[in-house]
This record gives sequence, C-alpha cells and structure tokens, in this order.
Amino acid sequence: MASVLVASNRGPVSYVLGEDGSLDTRRGGGGLVSGLSAVSSQDSVWVCAALGEGDREAVRRGVGEPGVRMLDIDPDVYADAYNGIANSVLWFLHHHLYDIPREPVYDAEFRRRWESYRAYNRAFAEALAGAADEGAAVLVQDYHLALVPGQLRELRPDLRIAHFTHTPWASPAYLRMLPDDVREELLWGMLGADELGFHTSAWAESFAAGADVAGTGTRVAVHPLGVDAEELRALAYRPAVDERLAELRAEVGDRKTIVRVDRTELSKNILRGLLAYRELLTARPEWRGRVVHLASAYPSRQDLEVYRSYTTSVAALAEEINAEFGTEDWTPVLVSVKDDFTRSLAAYRLADVALVNPVRDGMNLVAKEIPVVSEQGCALVLSREAGAYEELREDALTVNPFDVSETAEALHTALTMPHPERADRTKRLATASTALPPQRWFLNQLEALRGPA
Amino acid sequence: MASVLVASNRGPVSYVLGEDGSLDTRRGGGGLVSGLSAVSSQDSVWVCAALGEGDREAVRRGVGEPGVRMLDIDPDVYADAYNGIANSVLWFLHHHLYDIPREPVYDAEFRRRWESYRAYNRAFAEALAGAADEGAAVLVQDYHLALVPGQLRELRPDLRIAHFTHTPWASPAYLRMLPDDVREELLWGMLGADELGFHTSAWAESFAAGADVAGTGTRVAVHPLGVDAEELRALAYRPAVDERLAELRAEVGDRKTIVRVDRTELSKNILRGLLAYRELLTARPEWRGRVVHLASAYPSRQDLEVYRSYTTSVAALAEEINAEFGTEDWTPVLVSVKDDFTRSLAAYRLADVALVNPVRDGMNLVAKEIPVVSEQGCALVLSREAGAYEELREDALTVNPFDVSETAEALHTALTMPHPERADRTKRLATASTALPPQRWFLNQLEALRGPA
Repeated sequence: MASVLVASNRGPVSYVLGEDGSLDTRRGGGGLVSGLSAVSSQDSVWVCAALGEGDREAVRRGVGEPGVRMLDIDPDVYADAYNGIANSVLWFLHHHLYDIPREPVYDAEFRRRWESYRAYNRAFAEALAGAADEGAAVLVQDYHLALVPGQLRELRPDLRIAHFTHTPWASPAYLRMLPDDVREELLWGMLGADELGFHTSAWAESFAAGADVAGTGTRVAVHPLGVDAEELRALAYRPAVDERLAELRAEVGDRKTIVRVDRTELSKNILRGLLAYRELLTARPEWRGRVVHLASAYPSRQDLEVYRSYTTSVAALAEEINAEFGTEDWTPVLVSVKDDFTRSLAAYRLADVALVNPVRDGMNLVAKEIPVVSEQGCALVLSREAGAYEELREDALTVNPFDVSETAEALHTALTMPHPERADRTKRLATASTALPPQRWFLNQLEALRGPA
Repeated sequence: MASVLVASNRGPVSYVLGEDGSLDTRRGGGGLVSGLSAVSSQDSVWVCAALGEGDREAVRRGVGEPGVRMLDIDPDVYADAYNGIANSVLWFLHHHLYDIPREPVYDAEFRRRWESYRAYNRAFAEALAGAADEGAAVLVQDYHLALVPGQLRELRPDLRIAHFTHTPWASPAYLRMLPDDVREELLWGMLGADELGFHTSAWAESFAAGADVAGTGTRVAVHPLGVDAEELRALAYRPAVDERLAELRAEVGDRKTIVRVDRTELSKNILRGLLAYRELLTARPEWRGRVVHLASAYPSRQDLEVYRSYTTSVAALAEEINAEFGTEDWTPVLVSVKDDFTRSLAAYRLADVALVNPVRDGMNLVAKEIPVVSEQGCALVLSREAGAYEELREDALTVNPFDVSETAEALHTALTMPHPERADRTKRLATASTALPPQRWFLNQLEALRGPA
C-alpha cells in the first residue's frame, strides 16, 4: 500500500529475456523517474504495463523492483489499446495529424479497439485502487490512460487524482471528430481527476474549450516541465560525447551548423525544415559551402505506413538538396537515422543554430536541452506551435511552422546573429529551460493535489 | 454605370470558340443568376473573369451581353490566383482538407502566387470602381475575391460593399497556419465590406473567432441560400428525366435505393460513405440483395494529384464492395462518373434514402434539392458538418461524418423508416429547403446593404 502512486504506460524498468532464459534489467530515465525519486520508494508505487516478452516473463516469475507494479495485460488487448487507439487515434487528434479526407474512420473495428482501450485503462484503475492507502495521491500520466481518473474515482472516491497530458490537447474542431459517446467518455475519464495538468496554457485552454469543466470540481493547471541542468551537463560532458564531438567537428570543418534532433515523427515537421534550408541556400547563396545541416531523424513507428512513407520522403528530400547544391567537398545535409543520444549531445554542444519547428508539440525538450549544453551559444529557431514557445519565445527566433519562407529567413538571422547576442540569449534560454526541473515539476503537482481540495 | 454590381469568378455566360472562328454563347444557372434577375439589367453590372479561350476571344472582339463585364486577366496570373491560391490554399483551409504533416507549404512559390491573387482581385476592384454609380451596392462573391472589398473600399469609399462566402470559413486553428501577413491581408480584404454573409451561423462564428470584427463597422450576417421549388420541379419533371428514371428503375428493380450526388471532391466524404454502406451490409445482412447504392461521383480537379488519387480510391473501394457482396443478379454499388444533371434529377426522384455526409461543406444544395423533387418521400442522412444541417437537422437523420458506424446505422434507420413518417419528414424538409430561394436570398442582401449603415 502506498500514499503516492504513479501510473504510466511505460515504467521505470524493463526486462530483456536472454537466450539462456535469464532476465536482464534495464533502467529508464526521463522526467518522471527523476521526479518520483523525490519521494521515498517505501511510500510510493509505480503502476505500468508489461511492454515486451521480457517484462511479461518478469511478471510471471514474480521478479520485480520494489515500488514497481507491472501489469501483464492480454497482448491483443494491449496492442489494440496502445497502437490502435492511443497512438493511432488520440496521438493524431491531439497533434492534428489526420489527412481528413481519408482519416479518421470510426467504424466497427474502431469500436472494438476502443473497448480494449477501456479494458487496458481499467486494469490500471483496478491496480491503483488495490494499492492505494486511504486518501492517497495518484498521478496518472498521458493520453494512454485518459480514462483512468474517471474509472478510479468510481472505485475509490477517497483518492486524490491528478492526470498530466504530455502531448498537446486537440482543438475543439478536432475533438469533435470523435464519435459523440467516445468523446464524452474520454472527457468523463479526464474529468474524474481533481487536477488536470498540461505543459502550457495553450493546451489547457484547448482542453477547456472542448470540455464542460465548470462545476466538475476539476482544476486545469499548467506545469511546464523543464530540464535538470546539472544532470544534463554531466551527461553531455562525458568523454564519450567529447569523442563524438571531435568526429563531428572533423566532418563539418569550419562551417556553421544548423542542428535538429527528432524522432521521424509526423508532428516534428522535418520536411518543411529541409524545405526551409533549401530556400535559405536559394535565397541567400552566400551560405552555400559555409553551413551544414545536421539532422538527426531516427525512425519511429515504422509499423505504420504513413510513418514509413514520411521517413522515405525525408531521405529523398535530403538527397535532392545534396544533389542540387552539394560540391566535391561540401555535403549540405547530413541525415543521421541512428537513435544515438551520445551523438545528439555532441551535436547539441556544437550547434550554432538549433531548428525546432514542430507543427504541434506538447513541450519539446530538445528546445530546452540545447541551450543548457551549448558550448558557444546557440541561436534557437522555434515553432510557435511547440509547448516550449510559451517560456522561450522572448529569446528564441520564433516561426510559424507552415511558413517555410519565414523559417528560411529565421535561419539566416540565426546564422548571422553576433556572438555576444547569441551567448546572452542562450544564457537566458537556459535559465528559462531549467526553471521547473523534473523533481520540482513532480512535487508541485503532488503538493497541489494534497493541498485543500 | 450601375447601381447594383455583382462580382464573381465565373460569370453568367461563357463563350465557346468554334473551329470556324464563330463564338457560341452558353448561359449558366445557379443561385446568383436567378438572384440577380430580380434586378433590372439596366441598373446592374456583373463583373466576372474570362475563363477560357472562348471568353478571352469574346473580350478581344468586344462581344458581350448587356450588363456583363468580362475581365481578360493575364492567363498566368489567373492560373496562379485561381488554381494556385483560391483552389489549392483557401479551399483547403476553409474545408480543413490539408494533410498537415506535408501540406501546406508556404514558401517563395506561394508568395509569388499570392501576388497574383492580389493582382487578380485588384483587376476586379478596379473594374467595379470604374462601373459603379455614386453610393452603388456591390455584392462580391466567394473566396476567390476575398481581397476585393478592402481594395474597392480604398478606391471608392462611397460604395456599399457586401461579400458572401459560399464555402465554410476556416476554424481559428486552421486560419492560423497562413503566414501572419497573408492572414492579416485576407482579413483586411474581407473587413473592407459593410456586410459579410455566410450560409450558416457556424461559419459566421468561425469567421468572428479568427478575426477582430469589433469596431470595424462590418456586420457578419447569415443568409442561408435555399432552392427555387418551382424552377427545380419544372426541371426534374421533364420528359428527358422521365426517361432516365425509367432506365434507373429497370436497373434497380424493386430494390431500395441509397442515392448520393457529388463532384468527387475531397470534402464530400465519398469514401466514408462507401465504408458506411459496407458496414451496413456486414452488420445488417438482411439488406444484401435488397438495396442498391447509386453514387454519382463525377471527377473534379483532376489536374491535382490528391484529387486523382482520391478518385482512384473511390472506384477501388466500390469495386471491392461489389466483389465482396455482389451476386449474379445484384450489384451493390453503381458508381456513375458522368456529370449528368438529368440522371441526377432522376436519381433524386427515385431515392428512398439520400446520403449527404461531407466532412465540411458551405451549404450543400443536394440536401435541399432532393426533398423538393422526391416522388415517394426520401429519408435524408445528413452530416452535421454541412451548412444545410442548421436548417434541416430536425427532419434529417444527422450523423458525425467521421463516424462510419453511426452513418451505417443511420442508413439502416433511413431504409426502415415507415412510409408516412418519411413522407412527412420530406414535406417539412422541402419547406425548410425552399425558405430562402435565390431571388429572396439576393434581395435580402441588397436590402441589408442599402438599409441604414
């Protein structure tokens, strides 16, 4: 039994099943792990899903970490809930990613998956209900578990429940696409919480515009997650990163660098980023041969055709630009498709300009990490549709992510920014980025939940 | 000089150039032609664009109808304005049709086209300014000419200017995708009008939510265009239609019919209509062999790849359904790709059920025409995202156009509706559909414009 509970799809540990039947434990990082460490593990329980065969085997054998409760949900139910609803419906809605003439299609198959989503949420609600002390605080994470607050409220009216959304929230015109009863159930689930947290006021307002919050007793609050400067700098200045940095420097020479680091995710806007870079080289030919665009764009969700096709388009456009402008000793775009955090940190340190131009993004921590580890100061070109915009807008060069010409011009301004100005801005960006580090972010929510209801 | 002026891209006449050099005049129909006929042609001028080679030749020869002023705009400027901006940008924005991860791309090419759109609008503004009496009333039509009110206001502050939008208006989240200065220019153009008209309060509210109307002196008004019952019935009960009806009856036999009539337009939602029909045949197998879906879906904008691919998908899905359910003597879906109004009217008369399920639609006159000409009464399955929803919702079976299961169930309810109820509803739908026929619709706007400012 615990007085503080966290629920999230992915937990703080995972298990890999070896060929000899052994189980290897892997520990994750991230804001929640760091945040929950502020609470004694004797008082806390983290409820999460078994994700792979290793996790399922660990559950079967009763192997586990103290304070972690892993749920072995039926794999078909899990796949329908996680891929079929959370990542294919709710992710697309909240990020406005649907190609509306063709998608979404809410048919009988969708209905079947929605029942799995409900069951998967219910498994979490029941586990939480069974593990919570009288009056305990429960912090439910993200769009995977949007029904948990309502379900848990019915099982345990005594609990204090918070839900935090790490994505944006769909605008009313998008939310309205859901079947009415499904939309109502989704909102009922969310409004079971005492507090609903979002990264920025933009998403909080989007939620309030599509829901009937008044009179429900639910508070809508903004907790903009920041980065832990000390931890991040320690990671970024390890010898392994120094080595990658030296390699990158050798590759780039004395050219300026425009750096981006993303999963190849539809919302990240990598294509328009490349188009803006092409327009820069066309409109401002003085940059030809003098700049390199380092784009880390590692594959994501390759089980979905729309992601595979997007990934192909990114590679094709980069090649097109290299064919059009490249010379014997200059490759304009270097795309790296390997998910390599060490290389990313080296690129962060090296960057003269960072390009963070998502079409819609819950927060975007890359925008907050780069200023913290930058060596010489880095000009940040930032989309106004990223959650980070609210805190970083004053010292970033902000752009409309659909406006490729404006983005190209912002890249030029960033590249020509005098060094003292760039250093000053980077310092202020780093301060803003670290204003609410994970532990404080977590404790703020916990305190808000335990305060007078 | 005139006291009433209309401006629209397409005019009331067009010219076809024969091989012998002769010019053949074609007269168009539609709400505006019918509406303007309420005004004496001596007092009125209709300004429109020369659309094809015939029109341009007519302008060169000085051929023309009294009261029609055709503008011979540079063909490249026209193509950029009409295809490049009006139909590829503004149409997509107002109907929410963009595949956001890839489109829109507002780059240097877009900027070039936007200048053409401005020039094309200016040609209209100048022609109107030159033809208008002191204090004349000018009625500007649609998204092609959104800048005309502002441009004309600068040239002729004495005029009374109305603009009517026949499409929906983009929700704020969509409008915000435009480059800031372009969005501001678009709104400046619109707000040059004394009155901005929309088909429904939903689009009027959408406009007001994205613009700063207060203090501009512009009124936002709703004028829901209806159909002229007498004219439409006269058209629908001609012998040529009787013949097509007899042919359709022979094809369909004693089966029930579900009828749809659309251009193959991304907003019309033909794919989900077919998916709903498939779900009907799956979930309610009693309808197999007892119903035929007559889908008139004639090709549109085939110069755009996204329309070609959509048209291909419609044909493929119809074939799939026929392959899955069809029998020797029953073809479940009959797709007609010919733009044949005579056949459409025959289908209107025959229909047991009409399916009008757009994802977003300014008005949708098909939903208003079918009840007027139906022979036996026709149950109307109607999208809540069609403009017609506001007036027809009580007697239609209304659906969320993304909810294929709900649409399938509505088709079942429509097919099983008892005859007296269907006839009663159709009668009331016809009354609502003819509440504001074109002449009245036009005169209302004219009177509003001439009333106290």
